[in-house]
Amino acid sequence: MRAVRIVRPGGPEVLEWVEVPDPTVGPGEVLVKVTASAVNRADLLQRQGNYTPPPGSSQYPGLECSGVITATNSPVCALLAGGGYAEMVAVPEAHTLPIPRNLSVEEAATLPEVACTVWSNLVQIAGLKKGETLLVHGGGSGIGTFAIQFGAALGAHVVTTARRAKHQALKELGAHQTIDYTEQDFAAEVKADVILDIMGGAYLDRNIEALARHGRIVVVGLQGGRKGELNLAGLMAKRGTISGALLRSRPHDEKAAIVRGVRDEVWPLIESGAIKPVIDRRLPMSQAAEAHRIVEASEHLGKVVLLAE
Amino acid sequence: MRAVRIVRPGGPEVLEWVEVPDPTVGPGEVLVKVTASAVNRADLLQRQGNYTPPPGSSQYPGLECSGVITATNSPVCALLAGGGYAEMVAVPEAHTLPIPRNLSVEEAATLPEVACTVWSNLVQIAGLKKGETLLVHGGGSGIGTFAIQFGAALGAHVVTTARRAKHQALKELGAHQTIDYTEQDFAAEVKADVILDIMGGAYLDRNIEALARHGRIVVVGLQGGRKGELNLAGLMAKRGTISGALLRSRPHDEKAAIVRGVRDEVWPLIESGAIKPVIDRRLPMSQAAEAHRIVEASEHLGKVVLLAE
Repeated sequence: MRAVRIVRPGGPEVLEWVEVPDPTVGPGEVLVKVTASAVNRADLLQRQGNYTPPPGSSQYPGLECSGVITATNSPVCALLAGGGYAEMVAVPEAHTLPIPRNLSVEEAATLPEVACTVWSNLVQIAGLKKGETLLVHGGGSGIGTFAIQFGAALGAHVVTTARRAKHQALKELGAHQTIDYTEQDFAAEVKADVILDIMGGAYLDRNIEALARHGRIVVVGLQGGRKGELNLAGLMAKRGTISGALLRSRPHDEKAAIVRGVRDEVWPLIESGAIKPVIDRRLPMSQAAEAHRIVEASEHLGKVVLLAE
Repeated sequence: MRAVRIVRPGGPEVLEWVEVPDPTVGPGEVLVKVTASAVNRADLLQRQGNYTPPPGSSQYPGLECSGVITATNSPVCALLAGGGYAEMVAVPEAHTLPIPRNLSVEEAATLPEVACTVWSNLVQIAGLKKGETLLVHGGGSGIGTFAIQFGAALGAHVVTTARRAKHQALKELGAHQTIDYTEQDFAAEVKADVILDIMGGAYLDRNIEALARHGRIVVVGLQGGRKGELNLAGLMAKRGTISGALLRSRPHDEKAAIVRGVRDEVWPLIESGAIKPVIDRRLPMSQAAEAHRIVEASEHLGKVVLLAE
């Protein structure tokens, strides 16, 4: 098969679409012939050499895909520990999801990683409830566009930070309030019960300032630094909580439980049309380098899809 | 009545046992003739001018007391927002607890603040479960001696940090493992599911190192600093949580709910003898300054009790 190989750690140019050995299929796994994958920020870190794939997983990038199970010809999408940027990938059957009935196989490639990340953090960890205020940082990202729709579908009051050019689109996705982080201090604009953060260290102090009493910060990205000064006195005064949870390195059973939760609680929202995939553009896998440049520049809205041509 | 007045912010010498106006009793409150109060670290901060009492609460120190309700002559102990170092104090009836039947009124004065703090943090926030490992920092303190017994009673594996001179006593209270923090790095000795922390900033980094996967850090004191650098990448890799919760400034109803939880879940453990009050010494309220010196030096084990007269 062909796959996107990271020739060496570096910029987008180190991604090459090349012939590689077919994957081997382990116990409990199915082989998927890939239709599409999608770019996640973690892929960029992996390309730079800053995010080693967990032991035993594919060395090729790609944390989600859609396609057909070769043995049964069933359409499917899947949460992956790696290897989505390829013509074939082996995945535990328990980490696969059906294609929502109103979506194309291609569209479904954009959902597993964001749905599992957002559901596990907002529902399992933060316990977001109807009527609460949810602050979504980086509303224009794949995570952001999904979280806005999911929060609104749960009945939360959704506030999001993004560049002004993206505000109109984010309001159409369900954001009740938009904040241009280049001009406004979000901590002065909102008191949030739950904050879905992708900035890490750089936002830590202001996230605590922006927290309502009993508020919960869930950190799913570290684009603004892996460390930051934590104002514990401020956290205690708010009776707040900070959690962080990576998805990729979780044990098989935890991922399977998250996939089940997503199928039960998120898939119906997709099939009802309450949540729509937001696709910025589609590129062939041979242009993975270009796809990474787009995501790195943060000029996209939603997901950049890679097609296994 | 007489009360301990903080003449000005400063050292223990600013505490004076003087004649003051009797407290006024608000709606829903009862007037308690105080038998005993006990020293908490927050009292030291208040004395130094670093912990302003919440609006509407007594200006005198003292976050817990025992005595009798003047109107009914019923023995009672109570969680206070202040004013325990006095001959009388007004307290919402919903913040009172019965004297456990196997304890003296004097002994019961040592329980409300630690029981409410430990139960709300370990049970409500951290969800400590049987079989989990609990790390208690400062095992010799009032909080520590209570948390060790409570954790052991819940079936947790209890590890505690304290000076070596206190280890034998803490083992007798139920600690399964003791760590001398002056000689050993606790982060190298234990992986804890729940950490009850009193050090704040100074321990933040090593607390994350000492955390097991899905571990929860609950911060109830900031003796090692109000701020500290948080390793978010480390927290995410552990899928951990940091929470902080002050008790004193919480709204009436939250405190009442905690007091009910303590009565239902902690009082039976006291009445069965599983948890015993640990009293370092008793002093008259006129010697509050000496009591503060003892707690400040951390040479005590358990609580220092103040007797009204």
